[in-house]
Amino acid sequence: MAAAGGPERARAVLQQCLRASLQVKPPGPGAQAEWVQIERGMVIYICFFKGATDEIIPKIVNSLLNLKLCETPAGQFVSVLELPGDVLVVPQATLGGKAKGKRMQYHANIDKEDGMKLYGQFVSECQRELASCGHCGEAGVVLRHGTYGNRQVLKLDTNGPYTHLMDF
Amino acid sequence: MAAAGGPERARAVLQQCLRASLQVKPPGPGAQAEWVQIERGMVIYICFFKGATDEIIPKIVNSLLNLKLCETPAGQFVSVLELPGDVLVVPQATLGGKAKGKRMQYHANIDKEDGMKLYGQFVSECQRELASCGHCGEAGVVLRHGTYGNRQVLKLDTNGPYTHLMDF
Repeated sequence: MAAAGGPERARAVLQQCLRASLQVKPPGPGAQAEWVQIERGMVIYICFFKGATDEIIPKIVNSLLNLKLCETPAGQFVSVLELPGDVLVVPQATLGGKAKGKRMQYHANIDKEDGMKLYGQFVSECQRELASCGHCGEAGVVLRHGTYGNRQVLKLDTNGPYTHLMDF
Repeated sequence: MAAAGGPERARAVLQQCLRASLQVKPPGPGAQAEWVQIERGMVIYICFFKGATDEIIPKIVNSLLNLKLCETPAGQFVSVLELPGDVLVVPQATLGGKAKGKRMQYHANIDKEDGMKLYGQFVSECQRELASCGHCGEAGVVLRHGTYGNRQVLKLDTNGPYTHLMDF
């Protein structure tokens, strides 16, 4: 599904949720874990491959936020911006894995430093798109996101995840 | 990732869980919804494409159940059979979607009747593999699965989903 048949630069898995909670800071000595939470909306798991650059970020974000994957109470499918719904972004480098025998290898994944930079830009672009969506602001929808490099401790409550894969 | 570079016959998304609950029968008049539940283990979302036949089922099941994706308390990665962990199979036709503009199309998906047959065989083969795993039986691990064609109302609690994609 990569553009023009070239190698993939990014992979996203999308799941619809009624509520999702993600740990953004693990518990430390004398400190409880910190969590973020969204209500009805979409969870975006995102992974970048070697060769990805910031040029592809706007296209990916535009595509993901405008795909008609969210079910309205009337049973119609609209985008998360149209719903409008919350968005939770989860960095998920494991999506780049390829099986070799019984083990997964991640040779195609972008290196950690570049991945962190692109992830930050991805989150910023999502925030920008949500902020420029008038009725999203009125409805009080939020964007939350995980911390790159952390373990992504996640709780998900769905009315059907409608899991979708998008390669870019 | 399809074998020999041919078209994909099946797609699986794998997530690790601490607990997962799936509605297998929606609420009806005077009847509550029915759910199945697993504890620590793996959720397998599975989708079949046109051209898939029952010949590929043993290979897919063997691969998924033996991939070293489950983290032990010591931080090592072992297969769900080695853990041993529970397995929840979720039929997920949306995984076969391809974006056309803002909508997903599912032209590559297998037709419903054949998909239901393959799904049943997939579940049976998973059950067979778990049953032939001695320490799985001793540990009391279970396989649960969703109802093909139903809405897959799912609740998921993870210590990190480690989302993986496998195409066959």
